[in-house]
Amino acid sequence: MRILILGGDGYLGWPTAMHFSAEGHQVTVADNFAKRKWELEQGIAPLLPIPPLHDRVHTWNVTNKSNMQMRIGDLKNARFTYGLLDEVKPDAIVHYGEQPSAPYSMQSRAAAVDTQVNNVVGTLNILFAMQHACPESHLVKLGTMGEYGTPNIDIEEGYLTVTHNGRTDTVLYPKKPASFYHLSKVHDSHNIAFACRTWGVRATDLNQGVVYGMNTAQTEKNDKFRTSFHYDHVFGTVINRFLVQASIGEPLTVYGRGGQTRGFLDIRDTVQCVDLAVNTPADEGEFRIFNQFTEQYSVLQLAERVRQAGKRAGLSVNISHVENPRAEAEEHYYNAKHSKLADLGLKANLLTDESIDQMLATVLKHTDSVDRRNLLPTIRWKGGGTRPRTES
Amino acid sequence: MRILILGGDGYLGWPTAMHFSAEGHQVTVADNFAKRKWELEQGIAPLLPIPPLHDRVHTWNVTNKSNMQMRIGDLKNARFTYGLLDEVKPDAIVHYGEQPSAPYSMQSRAAAVDTQVNNVVGTLNILFAMQHACPESHLVKLGTMGEYGTPNIDIEEGYLTVTHNGRTDTVLYPKKPASFYHLSKVHDSHNIAFACRTWGVRATDLNQGVVYGMNTAQTEKNDKFRTSFHYDHVFGTVINRFLVQASIGEPLTVYGRGGQTRGFLDIRDTVQCVDLAVNTPADEGEFRIFNQFTEQYSVLQLAERVRQAGKRAGLSVNISHVENPRAEAEEHYYNAKHSKLADLGLKANLLTDESIDQMLATVLKHTDSVDRRNLLPTIRWKGGGTRPRTES
Repeated sequence: MRILILGGDGYLGWPTAMHFSAEGHQVTVADNFAKRKWELEQGIAPLLPIPPLHDRVHTWNVTNKSNMQMRIGDLKNARFTYGLLDEVKPDAIVHYGEQPSAPYSMQSRAAAVDTQVNNVVGTLNILFAMQHACPESHLVKLGTMGEYGTPNIDIEEGYLTVTHNGRTDTVLYPKKPASFYHLSKVHDSHNIAFACRTWGVRATDLNQGVVYGMNTAQTEKNDKFRTSFHYDHVFGTVINRFLVQASIGEPLTVYGRGGQTRGFLDIRDTVQCVDLAVNTPADEGEFRIFNQFTEQYSVLQLAERVRQAGKRAGLSVNISHVENPRAEAEEHYYNAKHSKLADLGLKANLLTDESIDQMLATVLKHTDSVDRRNLLPTIRWKGGGTRPRTES
Repeated sequence: MRILILGGDGYLGWPTAMHFSAEGHQVTVADNFAKRKWELEQGIAPLLPIPPLHDRVHTWNVTNKSNMQMRIGDLKNARFTYGLLDEVKPDAIVHYGEQPSAPYSMQSRAAAVDTQVNNVVGTLNILFAMQHACPESHLVKLGTMGEYGTPNIDIEEGYLTVTHNGRTDTVLYPKKPASFYHLSKVHDSHNIAFACRTWGVRATDLNQGVVYGMNTAQTEKNDKFRTSFHYDHVFGTVINRFLVQASIGEPLTVYGRGGQTRGFLDIRDTVQCVDLAVNTPADEGEFRIFNQFTEQYSVLQLAERVRQAGKRAGLSVNISHVENPRAEAEEHYYNAKHSKLADLGLKANLLTDESIDQMLATVLKHTDSVDRRNLLPTIRWKGGGTRPRTES
């Protein structure tokens, strides 16, 4: 299969590209390195340095006698996007090419606007370019469980069947996103749904939970194959941040009471889920939605799990509650369905003590690389974008 | 009250500005004349020429001993938007300043992207500028009934109470918009709802039906006070187009079978509804949603009403069914609630035979001004944006 990975330089894009290449598919990765620029703006780096994409792709191809292709460009640039799809004629497009951080989007007006324009325009350009170049292609788009928010009813997988005043319809599940970033994904979902029902586009929206971990089957085989592991307050996800805090003897900083419950998954399961979606394409005109996570936890439960792992590793780990920088419910009902990917064959890598111990052991090898200044949140939801982009 | 009218040069913005000024409010109109540029791109003009906004405001102020202010700028330009709100410190912001046409948005990739960026970024800038300059101000935002689409259940006013698996929540009514333009309004609604619940913004979203008519209490008092009446396939609404077709002996062109049912209202009721919304502001943090229309009709019913009006005026009017350029259901359930503005005191100007006869009489005075080339649709929803922006 010809598979195009957009955002192929990223935390999830790169492992996904290696996976499909290892499976024998013809993979093209595309990126514009916007994420690396956003990191520089924030003064943030991944735990371990990540070589340029050129070097990673070259090393991958030499090591594996593979032929992964790379293209550099911005999805907002329609000429680039049309040209890319014209050239590659992909059977599947895996779209990770978006600004991925809620805090990033909440820091300022400029960042909120940039996030929504970057994500929405990139995806619109892909939809139009597909019509032009490859209308039969299957768009596999990364969304987020954060699109749903925390409603007081069960979260279904994308659609809700409603009976109201004696009549029934099945509608897109109502969304209550929690940041300008999450809103950008809701906008994308509405735009893609429209393209499916109007033009017959095939699309799968993967509403992904919070990803943790750094290793997949490919990342460990060569230092150049590692993926960008973030533990900071902007791009780092909560388990990854807790692991790093535990490794350097800092308290695990729980935002508020920590009753915030979310869906989580191992990075290996991200790759597996995308593989399942690509290998069972949506039908013509179908807007298929999967909730992509394997387990629900509260933030406080996760802190406790990491604390215990620290104890097993001989570390003394404390949990501290810090003022919640976000506007979110800290105690709420949460029951999100996630059976569709399991029905397709997902074999979950659950958050076992063993997996936490392994991740912690990896992080403990690199404590010298940790930048302690980027652990605590400085971007506040209530500020209304009053934080300057640069701080001294 | 200090009232800021964004899009004050437009079909609805200008009559709204005159209304509030006549009521004694301190009105500022702002516009960047984007709509006039979009008309030029399409080769389209309103039925009667509209003087520059400078001239209209000047004549209004001289005639009425009034002090309406005018500012020229683009809401996408954050410096302009922040400066405008800093200077005016409005009590209410009436936001018409968006690209208003579904066909315009569907003509090409560039037009779809421009529509969404223009509308979404303008509104984001307003929300951030309000936080900066006037957090107590009330945002009255024009949305559209087209955000809802045509669900198989009753359309409520913005929110739906859902009982699902034994639990209940009240959620934003699920949307199924029918063009990239309508999608831009859905994106706006989600962004504004987030600002209300996160920052405490006061906002009213007016999901407006299809407006018809050209005269309000002020427009007829001076030729320079008239508003831009469009009858073309891009910016013209259906009743206005039918009236012009009847006046020049062209058949009324119904798209498809004509069973498409929508909510409609008289332009005088637009002004009245906005007045009611401004005079009863939303609470702090409230995202209030009204469905702003007075009657439901199918397109075929409207054609028949105009045909009969033509007959009364001694005209021979035919109805023709043309291939539907849009992707939409031509027969569907439609029952949209619209009681909240009536509860606030709306006295509807219904589509009586008398009102149709009056509108037709006005149009009949200006048949020499009609450009017959812009009546039939050339922008097709199914094309996927393959029409060039300029045609010979």
